[in-house]
Amino acid sequence: MKISAMECRHYRIPLPVVLSDSTHGDMSHVGLLTVELTDSSGLTGIGYAYTGNDIGGSALFSLANETYRDCVLCADPFGVEALWDRMWWHTHFVGRGGLTVFAMAAIDVALWDLQSKRAQQPLFRYLGGTDPNVPIYAGGIDLQFTLAALEEQTKGFLAAGFHAIKMKAGRDRLSEDVERVAMMRELLGADFPLLVDANMRWSVAQAVRAARALQRYDLFWLEEPIIPDDVAGHARVAQEGGIPIATGENLHSIYEFQNMIAHGSISFPEPDLVTVGGITPWLKVAHLAEGANLPVTSHGVHDLHVHLLAAVPNKSYLEVHGFGLERYLHDVMVIRDGVAIAPERHGHGVAFNWDALEEHRRA
Amino acid sequence: MKISAMECRHYRIPLPVVLSDSTHGDMSHVGLLTVELTDSSGLTGIGYAYTGNDIGGSALFSLANETYRDCVLCADPFGVEALWDRMWWHTHFVGRGGLTVFAMAAIDVALWDLQSKRAQQPLFRYLGGTDPNVPIYAGGIDLQFTLAALEEQTKGFLAAGFHAIKMKAGRDRLSEDVERVAMMRELLGADFPLLVDANMRWSVAQAVRAARALQRYDLFWLEEPIIPDDVAGHARVAQEGGIPIATGENLHSIYEFQNMIAHGSISFPEPDLVTVGGITPWLKVAHLAEGANLPVTSHGVHDLHVHLLAAVPNKSYLEVHGFGLERYLHDVMVIRDGVAIAPERHGHGVAFNWDALEEHRRA
Repeated sequence: MKISAMECRHYRIPLPVVLSDSTHGDMSHVGLLTVELTDSSGLTGIGYAYTGNDIGGSALFSLANETYRDCVLCADPFGVEALWDRMWWHTHFVGRGGLTVFAMAAIDVALWDLQSKRAQQPLFRYLGGTDPNVPIYAGGIDLQFTLAALEEQTKGFLAAGFHAIKMKAGRDRLSEDVERVAMMRELLGADFPLLVDANMRWSVAQAVRAARALQRYDLFWLEEPIIPDDVAGHARVAQEGGIPIATGENLHSIYEFQNMIAHGSISFPEPDLVTVGGITPWLKVAHLAEGANLPVTSHGVHDLHVHLLAAVPNKSYLEVHGFGLERYLHDVMVIRDGVAIAPERHGHGVAFNWDALEEHRRA
Repeated sequence: MKISAMECRHYRIPLPVVLSDSTHGDMSHVGLLTVELTDSSGLTGIGYAYTGNDIGGSALFSLANETYRDCVLCADPFGVEALWDRMWWHTHFVGRGGLTVFAMAAIDVALWDLQSKRAQQPLFRYLGGTDPNVPIYAGGIDLQFTLAALEEQTKGFLAAGFHAIKMKAGRDRLSEDVERVAMMRELLGADFPLLVDANMRWSVAQAVRAARALQRYDLFWLEEPIIPDDVAGHARVAQEGGIPIATGENLHSIYEFQNMIAHGSISFPEPDLVTVGGITPWLKVAHLAEGANLPVTSHGVHDLHVHLLAAVPNKSYLEVHGFGLERYLHDVMVIRDGVAIAPERHGHGVAFNWDALEEHRRA
């Protein structure tokens, strides 16, 4: 059995609403790389990766379509680990993270899709899971909202049945963040899981100050208080700030997660399968977390992460966030009473509407 | 003052001799990205980056030519730090290392070239250095050489006036490595600086075993015994193996170096300005090393690193290795009696022979 064909496509898709947070500025588009693999039995698998504002999108397409082509074609589709390892080492000198792992992720997802389709199983069952239900949180991109708009958004989330909510922090003045979090806690009542995301806005000292000021509001986690490069800094924020720390969307290898975990720096590893290199390393990060007695959560790409969280025993919340791709999918993820349900379709079950995507195609 | 034009070119150049080491397989080509910046006064600067076998070369060109173009054009050429920071954050989500920093390096080098030309100074003097002389070592790509060929190469290095020599290790059997190192020490005599490079071949346990077996041959450093991701592993190899450790060609940020240095894992930080994102972060790594009471060395790109090592007070050896690019330069680095001499031409003084390169141009 061999992989006999690989087709890559690159799209630049406008978002329905411009997003913004404390660090990334305005996001008006998303770049989408799709990879379709066909094996010698005629079975196909689909994988994809995204980039905010399509930054690096052409380079990402080139990596998948050219740089990894010889690694992929003629590979044994059963050899998921071998192919991943071959890609990692083929681009090791220009890789070890960054854009190369995004391209690897799209290929790796396609391979897992293909293999679980072959087994005629939904991905989460192929990976050993049995319960398709995954608790979710509603994530507000609300840093610039007025207090009134934040309150209105929150009431909408509650009416929609969400049992956990994430809000942004990192305003110019900490007192504004405190005021907003206090309003939210008041609105939600005691014990309701309230998560806060600072998108790397703070220095370590600022993050400790913020965490101490926010501690009385019983936050479920504080996400990305500082830059992801500073392992010792995360440990300081966790220990001195007194709020559990989540991070991971900007970590690009199992080694980066291991380093964070081994230093006692994080309570909620948050791998994004696109930014960590695919399903293969995402599962390993989940296992590293399990071995360290930690839950695992996710970032973005909820249509795929719902399978992965349903498959592992140490699941925490699923972030519901798909960069507006639901407009181009034949089936969207089912959410019922604050719980996402992994689909029973074979493979990951994500089917793109290629006709609808066509107008946004770049390559 | 503004940067008014940026011209990027991509070449794929055959090497005169196929190179191989314990990890990277055969290298028959080098990819070259060149970036030419022109400011509003008409002054120009040249930067470049390389990739082994041109892996990722098209993606690298796309990053420089497209992704960073808007960051670069209209930037103030005096604002080297500001431009570097803008590029880092523009591609942070798909970056933090990997291919993006290679593209940033080419742009950053062009900017330093331009600024030191404006000051009518050679780069090393612009950076505060006064002594153009930098000690060098001869680096053999000799893992597969017979003992006789290794001996012959070494006699050639000695006849050419080298005062330090690096050899490869990482043969299938450790006893072969020991035999080869023993022969070299016998040939070179006591105290002659002998460096050994394992190119990440070993596990931590294998590296400790190798270091212990090689310790009696008084090695100057043991380079890249293990993968660059394993910070704690480097500390173990250093402490249990008893040989000073060099690493850095595969580290991609000042944070990765700081992490290695802070854990007492390395004695010779070895940044490559191309793989760490340019002259700007290279200098910071040298300063991190100085603050930790360590020397700094280099990897590849000797025409540029000779300036940087000549500029800092904690210089160690310069690696003489330029991937055969000397065939396409108007002036090659001068070496006299085992010492490289930074040129007094304004800027970095590297002038490509564009006509000779033309037949290898890809974009």
